[in-house]
Amino acid sequence: MGTTGVRIAIDAMGGDYAPAEIVAGALRAKEELGVHILLVGDPQQIEAVIPLKSNRLGIEIVPAQDTIGMDEEPLSAVRRKRGASVNVAMDLVKNNQADAIFSAGHSGAAMASALLRLGRLPGIDRPAIGTVFPTIKAGKPVLILDVGANVDCRPKFLEQFAVMGSIYSQYVLGISEPKVGLLNIGEEENKGNEAAVRAHELLRENTQINFSGNAEGRDVLSGEFDVIVCDGFVGNVLLKFAEAVGGVILQILREELPQGIRGQIGTAILKPNLKRVKQRMDHAEHGGALLLGVNGICFIGHGSSQAPSIFSAIRMAKEAVDNQVLERLQSKYKVLQGEPQ
Amino acid sequence: MGTTGVRIAIDAMGGDYAPAEIVAGALRAKEELGVHILLVGDPQQIEAVIPLKSNRLGIEIVPAQDTIGMDEEPLSAVRRKRGASVNVAMDLVKNNQADAIFSAGHSGAAMASALLRLGRLPGIDRPAIGTVFPTIKAGKPVLILDVGANVDCRPKFLEQFAVMGSIYSQYVLGISEPKVGLLNIGEEENKGNEAAVRAHELLRENTQINFSGNAEGRDVLSGEFDVIVCDGFVGNVLLKFAEAVGGVILQILREELPQGIRGQIGTAILKPNLKRVKQRMDHAEHGGALLLGVNGICFIGHGSSQAPSIFSAIRMAKEAVDNQVLERLQSKYKVLQGEPQ
Repeated sequence: MGTTGVRIAIDAMGGDYAPAEIVAGALRAKEELGVHILLVGDPQQIEAVIPLKSNRLGIEIVPAQDTIGMDEEPLSAVRRKRGASVNVAMDLVKNNQADAIFSAGHSGAAMASALLRLGRLPGIDRPAIGTVFPTIKAGKPVLILDVGANVDCRPKFLEQFAVMGSIYSQYVLGISEPKVGLLNIGEEENKGNEAAVRAHELLRENTQINFSGNAEGRDVLSGEFDVIVCDGFVGNVLLKFAEAVGGVILQILREELPQGIRGQIGTAILKPNLKRVKQRMDHAEHGGALLLGVNGICFIGHGSSQAPSIFSAIRMAKEAVDNQVLERLQSKYKVLQGEPQ
Repeated sequence: MGTTGVRIAIDAMGGDYAPAEIVAGALRAKEELGVHILLVGDPQQIEAVIPLKSNRLGIEIVPAQDTIGMDEEPLSAVRRKRGASVNVAMDLVKNNQADAIFSAGHSGAAMASALLRLGRLPGIDRPAIGTVFPTIKAGKPVLILDVGANVDCRPKFLEQFAVMGSIYSQYVLGISEPKVGLLNIGEEENKGNEAAVRAHELLRENTQINFSGNAEGRDVLSGEFDVIVCDGFVGNVLLKFAEAVGGVILQILREELPQGIRGQIGTAILKPNLKRVKQRMDHAEHGGALLLGVNGICFIGHGSSQAPSIFSAIRMAKEAVDNQVLERLQSKYKVLQGEPQ
């Protein structure tokens, strides 16, 4: 397959398995999705992990000398290390040499770099990290935001998250009138902490979204909501808990199912079905997180991302570009806010 | 088996399956644990669900005319309906006619009733609801508090939760030096919202607990912590999410495993092992939630509790009484706070 116009800048040096797994996922995305990949980082290390037989069409290597370690303070590191791979990749988007960026490195650094280099969308106070959770309904994921960018959120931030999330859900996830929920501890509108009560009012009054009321913890996976907004503290706790739960359940299955002779026989017979169970629970199938609210398409991967996650995140980035999410956010949000165009 | 000294007041009218399932669980607890049960509620309805062949030794029925509905505002309902089953049961504890209370009714009402009738422990600003989660390590649960009593928490409340949780973990769950974690969004001490940063300092400086640092969402089920403290908003979201996850996974297993002929054969062979999987994931096995910080042993069950959960909660209540948790909280907390005895 040839390459389309979509160009993805990839921080090849970011993540626990960089650059090998990052490059492997990117190469697969190039082949299967026809995207043009710009691999940003140390050329020698990147070349070393590109198989010799690879078709080089659609691959570009963009040199970057520096990297940002997971233990560095993100804002100062991003400022100090101008030549860090995440910064160089971000500049490609800023300078319109790429349509989107993906990084599985220090997520705080990616966020800081995006804020400094791309800036915020008009009408947005704080960008949010959005991530897609699978639900009990197959093929009906839910977008949760914020999952970590803002530990303290004012009610109006949550309202902005709701508008941005609705646009993303509609144009990338293909939901015609996304049902928006406010993560809370009860269904009634007067439930929750102060911020939640006030946010409920704002969301209810906002005619640009399809607000469906409070979503409790149990509603996250029910498939009843398409977008759920929350502050980055509770969202991050939930995300990391949810990621861990899959592993815990799989371990329980691995411990209990093969016990005894019947267990071993049954487990062997069920192997293909168990694989499907694993797939439905696997977060990697659902790809990276999106930084919504900056002036560019920016995807962030988990530090532990391997090739399948990288591929999945690049696919989502491509879909965001194909569906003009940035342009829709730029213009629609202005309209919503009544700001001059 | 005869009855021991432990007397449990049971709100027989509270919960979706009251009184039948409440009474069934209580009767089993009486038989297997030898507790004395005081069934509080409408005598006629209670009598109707006690099997005729039951041994009546150790069963007492305490009449209460009223009940509190799930949709009532808890504080005013508790104040208005003095004769509600939860109030009558609470008074049994207050007047030393029972050693502990269990209610699966309106949890807000149970909390309000406990606060009004039993009062707070000395040194405690806000009681917390604690609940025990299973972890990836079989037989090594973790106590999470608060899971819903306080939607906004000051750092010192979290410190009090940590001290109370440690005592409960040590004397009821049998952990010699419970490792206490602060639920947060990163491991570093400067991570999180303002309340979390300040709480981290307080917990680190408190020499009466074994503080092991921040616990992220992924650490909740890792078995690395014995007690995790958080505010009631995030704790409640996490609890309800966790409760739902088990059901979601079981549904995925039910959908995927029996597919195809191989699937049906394999599933049939694995039936006993799948039952063990279900048990390990089942919240009911781990019983009710504990209201820590009031001047009495008070357990709260899920509205949807059925007999096994009721039994399990009563067992925990008995263990709390047997191990003198209330006395330890009363005296030790005073010592910790340096208050006059």
